[in-house]
Amino acid sequence: MHDQPQLLLFDIFGTVVDWHGSIVRELTALHPEVDADAFALAWRAAYRPSMERVMSGAQPWTRLDELHRASLDALLPRFGLAHLDDAQRRHLNGVWHRLDPWPDSVAGLTRLKSRFTIASLSNGNLGLLTNMAKRAGLPWDCVLSAEVFKAYKPDPAVYLGAARVFDLDPARAMLVAAHHDDLAAARACGLQTAYIERPLEFGARQPKDVSPEPANTMHARSITHLADLFGCPV
Amino acid sequence: MHDQPQLLLFDIFGTVVDWHGSIVRELTALHPEVDADAFALAWRAAYRPSMERVMSGAQPWTRLDELHRASLDALLPRFGLAHLDDAQRRHLNGVWHRLDPWPDSVAGLTRLKSRFTIASLSNGNLGLLTNMAKRAGLPWDCVLSAEVFKAYKPDPAVYLGAARVFDLDPARAMLVAAHHDDLAAARACGLQTAYIERPLEFGARQPKDVSPEPANTMHARSITHLADLFGCPV
Repeated sequence: MHDQPQLLLFDIFGTVVDWHGSIVRELTALHPEVDADAFALAWRAAYRPSMERVMSGAQPWTRLDELHRASLDALLPRFGLAHLDDAQRRHLNGVWHRLDPWPDSVAGLTRLKSRFTIASLSNGNLGLLTNMAKRAGLPWDCVLSAEVFKAYKPDPAVYLGAARVFDLDPARAMLVAAHHDDLAAARACGLQTAYIERPLEFGARQPKDVSPEPANTMHARSITHLADLFGCPV
Repeated sequence: MHDQPQLLLFDIFGTVVDWHGSIVRELTALHPEVDADAFALAWRAAYRPSMERVMSGAQPWTRLDELHRASLDALLPRFGLAHLDDAQRRHLNGVWHRLDPWPDSVAGLTRLKSRFTIASLSNGNLGLLTNMAKRAGLPWDCVLSAEVFKAYKPDPAVYLGAARVFDLDPARAMLVAAHHDDLAAARACGLQTAYIERPLEFGARQPKDVSPEPANTMHARSITHLADLFGCPV
């Protein structure tokens, strides 16, 4: 039996906000001729390799905004958008600051905040996460980011660094995420873990397996369901 | 004439919260025999020298919680409190997480938040600032701290680092503080500055000169007055 955590740390992209749907909506409005579903998936596919170049030391510390932009520049010709100028590219890159939350996110976080300290723990940079929270109404007690630790998840420095910020034994912190690999890395650092089902993270064309992984401390259908499981009042 | 800032960065100790009054209240409740006014002033007097030891390189990066604790340990014998055990010292050191806001702080910040991105920019560490904000209801969009930049104000890395987090020209950021030296250092980095009058920061026995300094962009009697000056709706 685990002690209750004091600190809930939230993965953001896919867990709290719908990156796929938000990018599809913005791109479709701007460039209806482009296959927005394929575009969103291709952009996201460049995410992990771009961070691995930083973590391998091949590239010095680089914020996610800049990694997203480099991936975007490489992607645009494949989608017939090589003609976009710098201002248009900067605007499009900013879509990651404008991702919409899943319908349960704000209500669930607000309930959990009454019981726990709640913080983001994302590979997104601080400015991105702050702009997103302000626009979407995500009520963080603290915006924590890979940028604070100069390391990207799944590097242990991120999970352990977040517990250290609050002077907590890692077992008193819980990572909440829609990705089993992120949760496994947190668990290896001693954190508790909660899985959130986001079957449509990659869009309706690519439903995701959201089967439980027994190693997780908790498994919830949504963030409001997690608040239910913790008995947080509505 | 200055462009309106987009980002308001707030000094915390003395500007947003009343460190002197809060420490006096807690210490008086715990140890009524001690001169709490003198104790609070002596603890605060150790603040700047302790950070200067870090910034000179004489000591590696150390968070403010730990600097406060070392200063406290050195201070206790002078006030007849050498007998406090580790748990009592840890509790007393945590008073910096429990500082009360000035009466106008929450209302003023809430109004300013409707127009600007508002963030702390304090030498306090992230955990301290987050616990304080949660207890006091300070509605930050982002908790920024010396801990993020591994440098203490008035080092330029802190002011410039905060503007960089939001990809802003420093002139689009404004430091709000009750201390002219903090504001002067921010101004040297290109930030706009707003002075807040806190005549009782050091207690009623030591009223502070709150005369305007013409180099500041704005001068306000309180944070709600700053919101008035910006025309933020009540």
